[in-house]
Amino acid sequence: MSGEEAPARQQQEPAEEKTENPPTEEPPSEAAQEGEPSPAEEPADEPLAAATPDKAPVAPEEEVFSYRALFLTGYGGYDKVKLQMKKGKPSLKSAEVLVRVKACGLNFAELLGRQGLYELLPSPPVTPGMECSGVIEALGEEVTDRKVGDRVLVLSRHGLWQEVVVVPASQTFIMPESMSFEEAAALPINYLTAYIMLFEMANVRAGQSILIHMAAGGVGIAATQLCQLLEDVTVFGTASASKHETIGQGGVTHPIDYRTRDYAEEIRKISPKGLDVVLDPLGGSDTQKAFSLLKPMGTLIVFGAANCVTGQKKNLLAVAKTWYNQFTINTLRLMHANKAVCGFHLGYLSDEEELITQTMTRLLELYTQGKIKPRIDSTYHFEQVGDAMRRMHERNNIGKVILLPEPKKEEEKPESNPEPAETEDKEEEENEENKTETSTEEVKREEN
Amino acid sequence: MSGEEAPARQQQEPAEEKTENPPTEEPPSEAAQEGEPSPAEEPADEPLAAATPDKAPVAPEEEVFSYRALFLTGYGGYDKVKLQMKKGKPSLKSAEVLVRVKACGLNFAELLGRQGLYELLPSPPVTPGMECSGVIEALGEEVTDRKVGDRVLVLSRHGLWQEVVVVPASQTFIMPESMSFEEAAALPINYLTAYIMLFEMANVRAGQSILIHMAAGGVGIAATQLCQLLEDVTVFGTASASKHETIGQGGVTHPIDYRTRDYAEEIRKISPKGLDVVLDPLGGSDTQKAFSLLKPMGTLIVFGAANCVTGQKKNLLAVAKTWYNQFTINTLRLMHANKAVCGFHLGYLSDEEELITQTMTRLLELYTQGKIKPRIDSTYHFEQVGDAMRRMHERNNIGKVILLPEPKKEEEKPESNPEPAETEDKEEEENEENKTETSTEEVKREEN
Repeated sequence: MSGEEAPARQQQEPAEEKTENPPTEEPPSEAAQEGEPSPAEEPADEPLAAATPDKAPVAPEEEVFSYRALFLTGYGGYDKVKLQMKKGKPSLKSAEVLVRVKACGLNFAELLGRQGLYELLPSPPVTPGMECSGVIEALGEEVTDRKVGDRVLVLSRHGLWQEVVVVPASQTFIMPESMSFEEAAALPINYLTAYIMLFEMANVRAGQSILIHMAAGGVGIAATQLCQLLEDVTVFGTASASKHETIGQGGVTHPIDYRTRDYAEEIRKISPKGLDVVLDPLGGSDTQKAFSLLKPMGTLIVFGAANCVTGQKKNLLAVAKTWYNQFTINTLRLMHANKAVCGFHLGYLSDEEELITQTMTRLLELYTQGKIKPRIDSTYHFEQVGDAMRRMHERNNIGKVILLPEPKKEEEKPESNPEPAETEDKEEEENEENKTETSTEEVKREEN
Repeated sequence: MSGEEAPARQQQEPAEEKTENPPTEEPPSEAAQEGEPSPAEEPADEPLAAATPDKAPVAPEEEVFSYRALFLTGYGGYDKVKLQMKKGKPSLKSAEVLVRVKACGLNFAELLGRQGLYELLPSPPVTPGMECSGVIEALGEEVTDRKVGDRVLVLSRHGLWQEVVVVPASQTFIMPESMSFEEAAALPINYLTAYIMLFEMANVRAGQSILIHMAAGGVGIAATQLCQLLEDVTVFGTASASKHETIGQGGVTHPIDYRTRDYAEEIRKISPKGLDVVLDPLGGSDTQKAFSLLKPMGTLIVFGAANCVTGQKKNLLAVAKTWYNQFTINTLRLMHANKAVCGFHLGYLSDEEELITQTMTRLLELYTQGKIKPRIDSTYHFEQVGDAMRRMHERNNIGKVILLPEPKKEEEKPESNPEPAETEDKEEEENEENKTETSTEEVKREEN
């Protein structure tokens, strides 16, 4: 659930596709406290309904400070994430820093969260966002190892999709000089997930073989790059055919189009003895397939249940089916197979500060050495968050989808509130400017 | 099931204790083929019932060659393992060697096998025995990397409890010069099990913490020694109080008397955050305890179901209870916990020749460097196999129980067939000579 990309399910509710969040104008402001949204009234279902400013406990001298923030206003489709203004400069605790955000990462956890399927995200209204990059603008009294102007990447459980965030300094990491803000926002969740799974849990070694599902997604690309640190690792990667050239260049030895072939059969043809490691972000019946693909002494790591997600809104049938097919194993079977089954969820590891810090430090070293480099699929402004989510949901991305707090340029903005259909066309054209377009045709996965 | 020691259950059928296998005289011979017993008639329940020699296809010139072999004649108590004579020199295939056996290891798998609970042992009549040491007496035509007179240790699925064995040369390993035959017979199963679990599956690292159940057993002592290869590993070891001094000297940081205390509570007092690794040879409800003792990113390895075994004979209730309490986990729970659950069973790894050979080579290096040294608990002659099994079953051993093919000296042997009770006393006295006696009082484990 942490950092994986959306599954390539056919949209179950095609009608929903048309109800995109229309473009919005700057909304009235809402009070903010310490970088986390205050538990404001549930915004109305109209886009960017205003909270009443007079309810907010903001000191008069701070009224001038306002910033853009995305809010999840309720569970459902793309239109549930709305852009709002927060007012009032957040106060800093002694160990915290205030960061002006330049770029944010979009993760599959946020797609789940929007559907009400991510239990670590507090109830709406809430600002999502687990990773971002930016520049430090203010320091708490006790912070000595950061300074104003430092370019940092930031990790948090949620709350980072806003122009200004206040976080403990320990959750920030100094960016290498050569790193762009987009790369910095793309790195933390995907690479921490991939690195800890590969080298802490699975202990992948030279000469081994691995299956990486959704190999064109953020975690998939991170894991593929990290496998290149070892000699002679054979990487099987599932992705739709249009992405095979790109992931092949990135290090996938055997790209497999799971839409037209049974990936398990394909793998057995090439590696009849099975695989050393399978990373499984899918859940459901794919986990069973993964287990059976392991050779003795092999390791399966389940780190998601992407099969739960089909349409734009929560699909109870898909959830139930994934749950019903959920892999359950007893220890006798594990013994007879000499296999390991692990679960990984970065969200539940947030207390393990030492592990996170160590791993982030290692990842930034690897970046500086040129051994890893996040691949940016596309960038979207905050007001385009619905399009960004749809791109990931429909699995059209190759690499990371990035959100930018800065407003779209005025000339790009519709001056009035146009027809929704027209807006969509307009937005899609705009999006062409900064994303790699791939086929949006989706074929339902063949698993039962 | 591979290499672990018996649990300290109270005997459920104390009456059975009295029906020991009385000492025996050399029995009439039985034909043997290629080091494996031929599927002879089921021996009668009298000790050492003779197979009819005239049925055996033995060439006349080989009639003079005879050797002692232990047979499991049926499922049940200690008396089901009987000493018999085999006649006829086994023929050698081109890649095989003939080894004169000097010492054999007793493993928990053989206790399970005698009860009909070890599925890898063929049906009786069959010669058990998965490890031994000895001297090469003959070579197949193709064997070039061994020579007559080589001292070797031998691994096999079964069939090694006899004076002479014929095995593929690839299943033999040259003994270091300083290694005794007893040590060589004690090393393979226990140290392979411990090494592969610790360093291939769990990837134990410096500074970590580990729980080793049955820390005074063969695998327990091996695992404790292997943990000393790393800096600053905290070893929790369960054993009865009388063994604490010994296992403490061997490297157990915190010995815990599981008979008088709840080991999970004791561990939580010392390590409130939990453990990095638990090795679980017990199964049943102890596996659940083990899982809950892990810290995030921790690894549980289940490698036995010793809780299945209570009395001398198969206890259906214990089997059912262990089965009922068997740990079953779904992937969602694993994800939320960030934990790994592995199964290990050396018997099912026997096709992984490369892993086995690599690991054995490493273990023999470590022995030569003085970093590991098998601890011999006691030695028993073949005719005392029932006593040897009882010692392990009642968990009175600290380290390895060894079987010696050579006959007991004549003066130790009763001349006639004495009363069973008298024999038992005699045997117990004899056993005092070569074993470390510890309290035989058994307290039922408190788990439900």
